[in-house]
Amino acid sequence: MSETEKEYRHDYYLTAAQCNAQNELSPQMLVQNVIEVATEHANILDIGFSKLSSDKNIWVLSRLTYELKRYPQMHERFGLTTWIENFNRHFSERAFEITGDSGETLGYVRTLWAIINMETRCPADLSNISYMAEYVNERECPIKRQSKIRIAGTPSEVTSYTFRVSDIDCNRHVNSGRYVELITDQCDLQTYDTHFISRFEIAYRHEAIYGEKVDVATALADDLAITEISDGTKKLCAARMFFSKRQQNK
Amino acid sequence: MSETEKEYRHDYYLTAAQCNAQNELSPQMLVQNVIEVATEHANILDIGFSKLSSDKNIWVLSRLTYELKRYPQMHERFGLTTWIENFNRHFSERAFEITGDSGETLGYVRTLWAIINMETRCPADLSNISYMAEYVNERECPIKRQSKIRIAGTPSEVTSYTFRVSDIDCNRHVNSGRYVELITDQCDLQTYDTHFISRFEIAYRHEAIYGEKVDVATALADDLAITEISDGTKKLCAARMFFSKRQQNK
Repeated sequence: MSETEKEYRHDYYLTAAQCNAQNELSPQMLVQNVIEVATEHANILDIGFSKLSSDKNIWVLSRLTYELKRYPQMHERFGLTTWIENFNRHFSERAFEITGDSGETLGYVRTLWAIINMETRCPADLSNISYMAEYVNERECPIKRQSKIRIAGTPSEVTSYTFRVSDIDCNRHVNSGRYVELITDQCDLQTYDTHFISRFEIAYRHEAIYGEKVDVATALADDLAITEISDGTKKLCAARMFFSKRQQNK
Repeated sequence: MSETEKEYRHDYYLTAAQCNAQNELSPQMLVQNVIEVATEHANILDIGFSKLSSDKNIWVLSRLTYELKRYPQMHERFGLTTWIENFNRHFSERAFEITGDSGETLGYVRTLWAIINMETRCPADLSNISYMAEYVNERECPIKRQSKIRIAGTPSEVTSYTFRVSDIDCNRHVNSGRYVELITDQCDLQTYDTHFISRFEIAYRHEAIYGEKVDVATALADDLAITEISDGTKKLCAARMFFSKRQQNK
């Protein structure tokens, strides 16, 4: 199998109704699309939902990092190409290239996935699907892995939130994309009009459920925002956003 | 032009990542899809964004009503077929049929659209696109139009909400789908596990903007929930939900 045959591509078209206030793909939608494409490719390789569910296991997204020169824009056709970069007994690393309308690279995404048992929610072993070794692609994702995310100092922005019906996914836990919204909503609309998130890092640590109340705490420093979502006793999720100035202010 | 040629169909596939806690298409996603399909069909008929924007006008969704026997389910292919049922100087009525995997009808949607000026936000005349008369389809949408929605008595559930970055769409107003989430979130997860919304009515009255604070007030009566979203001085939006018991409780 050639390296290209180990890749999978999904093409999208960004409609006006899907755009955010800056007429672009939102970070939340990008993360949803990444999860969708990962799921599709895993199904094709028979390491997906139906394979894992026979052992009562599922894939869970553990970390995601992306870097973008620019976001896909309204009425743009864009592509997400994915490949497996790595895997061991505990984790699988899956990378993505994001391409724009004319085929140019807009950016890259790194994701880290674990397998957990549906019932115990504890990590399971990847050795049952060790045949995925043959799908590992030698292509290297050119963006850095994320390092430990931790707030230093006192957060300047703390928002309380209680998870509601529309936050819950088919696993009865909070939707991965919804965390991204809670995190990006910590900055105001004007920030996004003048700047864009050029690098985004998120680490999912514990699953939240319906009715759970959390604090979303953010510390800002220059063009950097670090956010932690915690339920009072444990950290559910942490994120780091790097902002770049837009060339033309809208 | 035959009546069938006046119809436009978009096929969807419901991935696991897009499902709600009941493994179904959420009401919010259904409304987003309806807006997407309406936009696509309007563009094909040259009564869409590019045509209207030359006069600085845009389509706005004024009312939406749907009835469903059941919602599209996880991994189901479903279709939305749309046609123009009616139009006059002030409004255009566009209907939709929702079909499931095996082609059976799952339900219908009625929508009412107005044209407003982008700058003044005031209603504009539809007579500039009177050629849309030739696309009016004789097919009748079999569900009832919505009647006036008003809360009688004291609401039992009032939630305060301030619109954030992720709520804002490309017109710099609150996304139509986000209102649907605010409304459906007024009922708890258990309600949706045992019941589904078999008829949903929403009337959009005033546009909300970033940072605006609203109250979402709901009055419950048997299998009916009436909700009003207001900013203290005016009603922005009203909705009526009819619940039906699920045949098999999940």
